Amino acid sequence: MMEHLVRKTAIKLADGRDLFYFDDSEPYVSGRATRRCDDPRPLPPRFESGDARGTSGPIMRRDPLTGDWIPMAAHRMNRTFLPPADANPLGPARPGATYQDGEIPDTDYDVVVFENRFPSLLEVPGVSNAETHPDGQDLFCERPANGRCEVVCFGPDLHTNLVSMGPQRMQTVIAAWADRTAALSALPQIKQVFVFENHGEDIGVTLSHPHGQIYAYPYLTPKTAAMLRQARALGQKTGDPEVNLIASVRDAELQAGTRVVAENAHWVLYVPVAARWPIEFHLVPRRIVPDFAALDAAQREALADIYLKMMIVANHFHREPARGEDAQPGAYLPVNYISAWHQAPLSPADGRAQLGLHCEFFSFLRAPGKLKYLAGSESGMGAWISDTTPEKIATRARQAARECVELDAFAGLDYPTTFR
Amino acid sequence: MMEHLVRKTAIKLADGRDLFYFDDSEPYVSGRATRRCDDPRPLPPRFESGDARGTSGPIMRRDPLTGDWIPMAAHRMNRTFLPPADANPLGPARPGATYQDGEIPDTDYDVVVFENRFPSLLEVPGVSNAETHPDGQDLFCERPANGRCEVVCFGPDLHTNLVSMGPQRMQTVIAAWADRTAALSALPQIKQVFVFENHGEDIGVTLSHPHGQIYAYPYLTPKTAAMLRQARALGQKTGDPEVNLIASVRDAELQAGTRVVAENAHWVLYVPVAARWPIEFHLVPRRIVPDFAALDAAQREALADIYLKMMIVANHFHREPARGEDAQPGAYLPVNYISAWHQAPLSPADGRAQLGLHCEFFSFLRAPGKLKYLAGSESGMGAWISDTTPEKIATRARQAARECVELDAFAGLDYPTTFR
Repeated sequence: MMEHLVRKTAIKLADGRDLFYFDDSEPYVSGRATRRCDDPRPLPPRFESGDARGTSGPIMRRDPLTGDWIPMAAHRMNRTFLPPADANPLGPARPGATYQDGEIPDTDYDVVVFENRFPSLLEVPGVSNAETHPDGQDLFCERPANGRCEVVCFGPDLHTNLVSMGPQRMQTVIAAWADRTAALSALPQIKQVFVFENHGEDIGVTLSHPHGQIYAYPYLTPKTAAMLRQARALGQKTGDPEVNLIASVRDAELQAGTRVVAENAHWVLYVPVAARWPIEFHLVPRRIVPDFAALDAAQREALADIYLKMMIVANHFHREPARGEDAQPGAYLPVNYISAWHQAPLSPADGRAQLGLHCEFFSFLRAPGKLKYLAGSESGMGAWISDTTPEKIATRARQAARECVELDAFAGLDYPTTFR
Repeated sequence: MMEHLVRKTAIKLADGRDLFYFDDSEPYVSGRATRRCDDPRPLPPRFESGDARGTSGPIMRRDPLTGDWIPMAAHRMNRTFLPPADANPLGPARPGATYQDGEIPDTDYDVVVFENRFPSLLEVPGVSNAETHPDGQDLFCERPANGRCEVVCFGPDLHTNLVSMGPQRMQTVIAAWADRTAALSALPQIKQVFVFENHGEDIGVTLSHPHGQIYAYPYLTPKTAAMLRQARALGQKTGDPEVNLIASVRDAELQAGTRVVAENAHWVLYVPVAARWPIEFHLVPRRIVPDFAALDAAQREALADIYLKMMIVANHFHREPARGEDAQPGAYLPVNYISAWHQAPLSPADGRAQLGLHCEFFSFLRAPGKLKYLAGSESGMGAWISDTTPEKIATRARQAARECVELDAFAGLDYPTTFR
């Protein structure tokens, strides 16, 4: 195993936001161009006077019917940042570009992470985080949405993606995820850190530059709360209050075997027994860890391989022919997807030992050009209905993996990962 | 108050499914044409031999990570019912039409309800409802998805909607919802009955004929389970274990007053304190009832008025100009929406006394042509982020209501409902 070296450089953007370069290749650009951050930006101050709290920071309210916290990002509607139509605001700065042209001050980068300019979650200095009761009603609760939203750019080139960038860059992205998870986990108000990627115009992604996001929530999300309830129930059933739910489900899937798609020395990939999406994979480590920061080097190297292979298989799942002038014969349209990296909640009291890092990767695409829509049952009741079965998804995924081998679609991914 | 008369006629379709006519106008068609149901349909048998249970009925599995039941409607993918492209399968039968042309055997109807031909939830006769463990794993649970899915056609004409049909037809629809709720609630395995409507092509509705659906779930949905947890917490806080959550939240909204949009003698319409959608209204009765069946005549009459006015206001919310050849100057495009009618769970042990009938009406439309997409936070974590605030929604709704008065958009709706 080669050690994967990454150089991190932290800078402050002109409006005070953090930006971090994660460089994996010479020349390391990030140390040279930070001078540009001494320039003042023609940007409004970050913390405007606005609502009753004297800030424009986002607030969140507790839904009295469900108990869910709902951040309200109304301030995001007044976005003052409108880059030119031909600009790529997530790309490296072009020579001579101003800060209005994009977010990244330097003219090259490998991987970069920065605070979202219009975040749904934001800690505003000096603001009390005490709960208040809107309209003086005991049933209503409001607090600052004092989390943090960061953007992760996976590489400098617009017309690339994680797959085309390859396993070395993937390891740099993993290193960035781990670094930011550790840093965000250290903020006192944060309850959990969520790493995710939305990919595809047809699910509302407006920026095609390869990027993901990190949300550090100041509350437990409904999905994590549900997993913790299941973990506690399993603890009661087994008599082991520290039982790990993720490991238990992974072991059951391995014993069943019927939906396992791929394995390597450190990771297992399967379609979960109760998959709810047209394509859904869960990627779980053999050695359970709470979060990215706790992955060792061997796990990270193995993850880079199986994660990219999973995405290649997903892109071959429906074999939707690529369109447009540049489309090669036999090339497929990349599938839209959401890649959701669950990490354990931060507080031991919340159940940190019982959950752990795993990826839930899913696509809305039922068939070429056909999206699964979230209708009344899903949107109104939170009650998902699957249009397929997990076994059908697994069968097609295994077949797609064999097709990928024949097409040499895994070229450059040399780590030994076995498909069923 | 006029008594609203509806004649119900139950028939069996040729493949054994129930169909119910709810007629509110002479000539009552439904008594005459049932002869056509003596004809055998060229349809496959409803309960095919297929999976391990010896049936093709849908199954459901419990997600071991969240505890959610996920019905798997894979058999729906093999739909054998492909009506001609120019047919409207929810319209009345044209003279001489065969059963392949549509679902309704008669050549006219007012309101009709029938069992979905390709349901996600279906009770299959003779099938054991016992839980099994897929792959022999204790952590995995599977059962027949033995609920019921019904389709409600609001009227015979394709190019109409509830608003254009008016308050008398709306009362017939309410009568049909009440009748079907009572009948489905009497099925022994059903835990809750959900009445809903998905409206709008851009949220995946494939049939433009005005219709809604009813799902009778054999489990408690995640949203209802969340409301029951909140109700129990409120019971503990107040010392009254029978406290009704819906009434408590409604009273807090009325006392606050800041988000109330409309009221009449029997109903209150407000934007909830923690609204999560770009447009969201909750419609709650003054006298809490568990379900539609328990509404009295005065509540139904008042509901028909305020429900239609709510939809008219929603259609004026964004003032998106209508498109197409038939568009009148000054006409607006109807908004896409999901109208979710929550009813109390059926078992007293589940907390029937603590919840009640109310409508959660919401739209994905942020602005003309702009949908809110459910990205990583919503789809992956169940953590909604609002792009606006409830107060902004309420302010715009009140303004839109005033515009509706000026435009005489409430014409024909004469029940005294007051807008703030």
